[in-house]
Amino acid sequence: MAKKLELHPDRLFPTLESTRAIARRLYEQVVNLPIVSPHGHTDPRWFAYNENFSNPTDLLIKPDHYIFRMLYSQGISLEALGLKSTIDGNRGEPDPRKVWSIFADHYHLFRGTPSRLWLDYVFQYVFAMEVTLSTETGELYYDTINEKLKLAAFKPRALFEKFNIEVLATTESPLDDLAHHQVIKNSDWKGRVITAFRPDPVVDPEFEGFVGNLIELGRITGEEINNFSSYLHALNRRREFFKRHGATSTDHGHPTAFTADLSDREKEKLFQLALSGKIDAQSAEIFRGQMLTEMAAMSIDDGLIMQIHPGSFRNHNSQIFEKFGRDKGADLPIATEYIHNLRPLLSKFGNNSHLNIILFTLDETNYSRELAPLAGHYPCLKLGPAWWFHDSPEGMRRFRQQTTETAGFYNTVGFNDDTRAFLSIPARHDLARRMDCGFLAELIADHRIDEDEACELAIDLSYHLVKAAYKL
Amino acid sequence: MAKKLELHPDRLFPTLESTRAIARRLYEQVVNLPIVSPHGHTDPRWFAYNENFSNPTDLLIKPDHYIFRMLYSQGISLEALGLKSTIDGNRGEPDPRKVWSIFADHYHLFRGTPSRLWLDYVFQYVFAMEVTLSTETGELYYDTINEKLKLAAFKPRALFEKFNIEVLATTESPLDDLAHHQVIKNSDWKGRVITAFRPDPVVDPEFEGFVGNLIELGRITGEEINNFSSYLHALNRRREFFKRHGATSTDHGHPTAFTADLSDREKEKLFQLALSGKIDAQSAEIFRGQMLTEMAAMSIDDGLIMQIHPGSFRNHNSQIFEKFGRDKGADLPIATEYIHNLRPLLSKFGNNSHLNIILFTLDETNYSRELAPLAGHYPCLKLGPAWWFHDSPEGMRRFRQQTTETAGFYNTVGFNDDTRAFLSIPARHDLARRMDCGFLAELIADHRIDEDEACELAIDLSYHLVKAAYKL
Amino acid sequence: MAKKLELHPDRLFPTLESTRAIARRLYEQVVNLPIVSPHGHTDPRWFAYNENFSNPTDLLIKPDHYIFRMLYSQGISLEALGLKSTIDGNRGEPDPRKVWSIFADHYHLFRGTPSRLWLDYVFQYVFAMEVTLSTETGELYYDTINEKLKLAAFKPRALFEKFNIEVLATTESPLDDLAHHQVIKNSDWKGRVITAFRPDPVVDPEFEGFVGNLIELGRITGEEINNFSSYLHALNRRREFFKRHGATSTDHGHPTAFTADLSDREKEKLFQLALSGKIDAQSAEIFRGQMLTEMAAMSIDDGLIMQIHPGSFRNHNSQIFEKFGRDKGADLPIATEYIHNLRPLLSKFGNNSHLNIILFTLDETNYSRELAPLAGHYPCLKLGPAWWFHDSPEGMRRFRQQTTETAGFYNTVGFNDDTRAFLSIPARHDLARRMDCGFLAELIADHRIDEDEACELAIDLSYHLVKAAYKL
Repeated sequence: MAKKLELHPDRLFPTLESTRAIARRLYEQVVNLPIVSPHGHTDPRWFAYNENFSNPTDLLIKPDHYIFRMLYSQGISLEALGLKSTIDGNRGEPDPRKVWSIFADHYHLFRGTPSRLWLDYVFQYVFAMEVTLSTETGELYYDTINEKLKLAAFKPRALFEKFNIEVLATTESPLDDLAHHQVIKNSDWKGRVITAFRPDPVVDPEFEGFVGNLIELGRITGEEINNFSSYLHALNRRREFFKRHGATSTDHGHPTAFTADLSDREKEKLFQLALSGKIDAQSAEIFRGQMLTEMAAMSIDDGLIMQIHPGSFRNHNSQIFEKFGRDKGADLPIATEYIHNLRPLLSKFGNNSHLNIILFTLDETNYSRELAPLAGHYPCLKLGPAWWFHDSPEGMRRFRQQTTETAGFYNTVGFNDDTRAFLSIPARHDLARRMDCGFLAELIADHRIDEDEACELAIDLSYHLVKAAYKL
Repeated sequence: MAKKLELHPDRLFPTLESTRAIARRLYEQVVNLPIVSPHGHTDPRWFAYNENFSNPTDLLIKPDHYIFRMLYSQGISLEALGLKSTIDGNRGEPDPRKVWSIFADHYHLFRGTPSRLWLDYVFQYVFAMEVTLSTETGELYYDTINEKLKLAAFKPRALFEKFNIEVLATTESPLDDLAHHQVIKNSDWKGRVITAFRPDPVVDPEFEGFVGNLIELGRITGEEINNFSSYLHALNRRREFFKRHGATSTDHGHPTAFTADLSDREKEKLFQLALSGKIDAQSAEIFRGQMLTEMAAMSIDDGLIMQIHPGSFRNHNSQIFEKFGRDKGADLPIATEYIHNLRPLLSKFGNNSHLNIILFTLDETNYSRELAPLAGHYPCLKLGPAWWFHDSPEGMRRFRQQTTETAGFYNTVGFNDDTRAFLSIPARHDLARRMDCGFLAELIADHRIDEDEACELAIDLSYHLVKAAYKL
Repeated sequence: MAKKLELHPDRLFPTLESTRAIARRLYEQVVNLPIVSPHGHTDPRWFAYNENFSNPTDLLIKPDHYIFRMLYSQGISLEALGLKSTIDGNRGEPDPRKVWSIFADHYHLFRGTPSRLWLDYVFQYVFAMEVTLSTETGELYYDTINEKLKLAAFKPRALFEKFNIEVLATTESPLDDLAHHQVIKNSDWKGRVITAFRPDPVVDPEFEGFVGNLIELGRITGEEINNFSSYLHALNRRREFFKRHGATSTDHGHPTAFTADLSDREKEKLFQLALSGKIDAQSAEIFRGQMLTEMAAMSIDDGLIMQIHPGSFRNHNSQIFEKFGRDKGADLPIATEYIHNLRPLLSKFGNNSHLNIILFTLDETNYSRELAPLAGHYPCLKLGPAWWFHDSPEGMRRFRQQTTETAGFYNTVGFNDDTRAFLSIPARHDLARRMDCGFLAELIADHRIDEDEACELAIDLSYHLVKAAYKL
């Protein structure tokens, strides 16, 4: 017999009843606050054209590398999950229902993972499923969700409103024309969907097609990019364009946190090398590092918040990359260093009151060793929340336990969902709020803070800090 | 007055009664499951000839570097503990009773360590001691244990059966003739004791006597080892020989996780260098890295599971090494890197469904940063349990807390005791089962998983996963 | 209305009542033990001349980089906090009352930090404040504290006695004449204030004014320092001088834990290079490393305990350093390595029973990976307590959780307050005792140790271990 699906109202709270009761009280203060999502990867087309999502598999499985990564790790091929190979002509399993059934058969693999918590939330609160997903209930799930997705109430804008999203940021390349954002802006829909400026394709000489990207950047900005100065000028213009489409932030996905502060002559020389397409790995790293410093200078001028996301080894599985392309679950964390690497930038701009940088890490060893001490000193620095692999109950707990004592709460910036999985956004914010309320409840329970302070903090962590940090 | 020795039935379970009750229920499901011990260092002679152990000191202290390391760290000389110096003619304290009395006098040093938990388990459950060990009771302990060791019920095979061991793997050099395993096999005893293939002496050019080892390898395989191809051939033959003696796995104790994928010409050149005995440290590291890739290729062919144990700085204390030799408690962990280091091997074989690699670490920073993300993606990779210094309550808790959310439970392989201390095997497995049940109970208590799932998981973690992962 | 200030008697204890009751019983055994403070940075002048402290701001805010660092990170200038710039003539806010009011306005920033816990302790127990600090109560606080500071009962020696300090170590440069310590010694006051030997200014070629410092060292020791041998001789004499003023320890604040063991010729060459003032960064690092080994040799001779505090990147914020000088909250931790780095020293002296080294870290990844295994083996090594950024409830908990299982309790040395903030000393020791009692209570609650053992341990961790380790 199918098992009942029934998320417990106290889930993720501390288990001691007296502490749990505190957590519950704090949570009541924040559960209905609007969602502010300053960083993510949803598709602006959804909100521009408001078309129904196609089917459960295309919506919930194929774009979510958290899900297919786990299935792949246990021996299920990506083709069987419907992913298309760009190289061997394999089109992937064409029947979404078959893919769903594989997922249902292997749902136990997600036990203990945040994916399981997010999915059950979506199943219960978005799709009103009443039994848990399993081999037995896979077909029922597919049919029920598939039917609902055809309804008006399940169109992107309706869900956006139902989710109580106050603002949602997507992330675009400087080469993007932001046409979908323009459509949203021109529509009579009131939902606030903004962009964020992600310059990797035009500041990382090792990005696929970098030289062509610069040519395109020149074309769309009307700037002849032939030296470092015209290059910066074009970037500045593009930032301005993004700001007009609502952007309040930039985002930098560098392999390391390395920054540089070169002389004008060195910068020009390095730029010409990059432009020639013949730059080596070491020079490319220096170029990227210099560009972080340049972007900091621009942020001081135009006020965009700067997010730095270092430490991911992209496309580690070369065979998967060659067959299926980017973002297939094979981006892996590497040890990351901030103290030496950020120093050139910080020596130049670290005390500038107009600069705002939000630092992220995939290397948790930096929470207490480097990041909290940095954010606890430099006025330009704040800490982004637990990110990616650490965007989970234990990951969030470690983040608070290892950053709070040195950086306090007010050098952090609330939660980011950072997701492509639109439907999981409320689930993720709910999880973050529960964990923060639980953490605060523990501090109250052992008398480190008082409940009135914690109540203020719970609201700040859920709502005010993110709005302030991202100028939203 | 001597204090009563009485291990609490709820030891190591969560302290909140409601959660503890859950842990207890889960533990009841696994407490009597057979022990599967796929990786360890017990002596096959014990089971081949089934002779009585000599005395408490020779059995419990001298071979256990967990114990004499702690005593040494507090200023007690290894000689006083009965260890023999190979260099200065010091034969070590000859009277085992005197050594035991030093141990008894210093038993408080082990408070808070897993050694204390294992020892008390052995004292209570194996030797039925009723008071705790102390200066006062040292002699009683020595006499009681010494007497029992003379009984038939305390012979190795009897204990093996009493301990409910389903299968026990030892670890041998490729140069071992496996004669003791052959004796076990030829005997009418039904206990399953198998070997594992540990090729370090013949794949690490920096191993003591490497060149001589290759000559010996050639001799026993009847292969003239004069080029890389004949070398691989000899290794293949030896793996085949180990398989015939029950081996289902290989084990690789490299200083780092470095792997290489060289051209045939480079491999040959490097091999000749190694064979000449004049290889430098850097080339030796490349050679070892290439050999991991070669061993992976062989594993794909012959199906042996590949265990990689990197990150130990062996024989750090040079004076102790010179006086007393290997394995004297001075093997120390070093920071270990997996993402870049494993990439050559993974780029070649990472998606091969016939490959099975189990990764271990002494550097816990890798649990969440590198190992869980690797195992949560690559189908050939699984995570070995918390190892060596981390084979302890807090160590196991960190392992689960830091790997589960990304890798899930099903990319792990149950428990390894990895011990020379035969009598501690049930104690170690019991500790691991208790910690897993406690961890699962916490997940149930804050409503992350349901009890029926946790019950399945508890049994999987104690029994099924290890059998599947090691093909036992 | 102002909120009542009332520290809970059970603060920081485990939240489960049954475990908390155990913690309470253990704490009762240690709460009134004298304070032994073997390492810190209080000013010996206070105890030599016993003058009243000037005002709340000069006593509690300006010397405490924990406090102004947090305020600075949130955009408050150091000038506004009364700190003087040495470069731009800015004298800093002259009115201590104004500075105090900024502090009061921003007291919420310290929520969740140990500073908050220490400060509230000082406010309640030293100054008998009855309401919490806030914008509203800032003036009341200033006035009350200001008045009390004029009383005899708030003079340094009176507070020292009130705090039940058995011995307090300060830290001085070898160039210090220890005149203030001499005054204390010559006085009829019974308080024990001793010095510690901190040779960084004369062993680190990159220390400001190193060459001049050597000349001064020669002058005060009457030694002509022109070669390595006369240099060592001068250092030896200075250590002797410090011993006569009560020193039982030396302290070494190196950027890394690197040690060296060079030939006499290499040492001489390196020393001449250092003496010339033209040494490069790499050679300076080797020189420092060699000096750790030399200092170990001297410790073997004169019995001074050697403290090694590696891993701080000093004065990271170059603009702040140029304007305000050292110790302005911009010393940041860096990843630290011990296993390879300490080996030269340990290979030479690691088994010498006359050597005592206490190791500290700002890089917590070393607790379980490197430091506990080192201290759990080498007889000369013990672990200093959680240091600086980790001198906090969560930091101390991680220290015990990650070191105890391998090193045990008896390879640790109790607590260091390491503070310039004299008034916070009882608060810090109280916090450490509470955390240790809580940790022990958890071990009892899940039956890892017995309460009689824990009781002994609580007293050892609070009192006996530090006295033994520092020979006090």
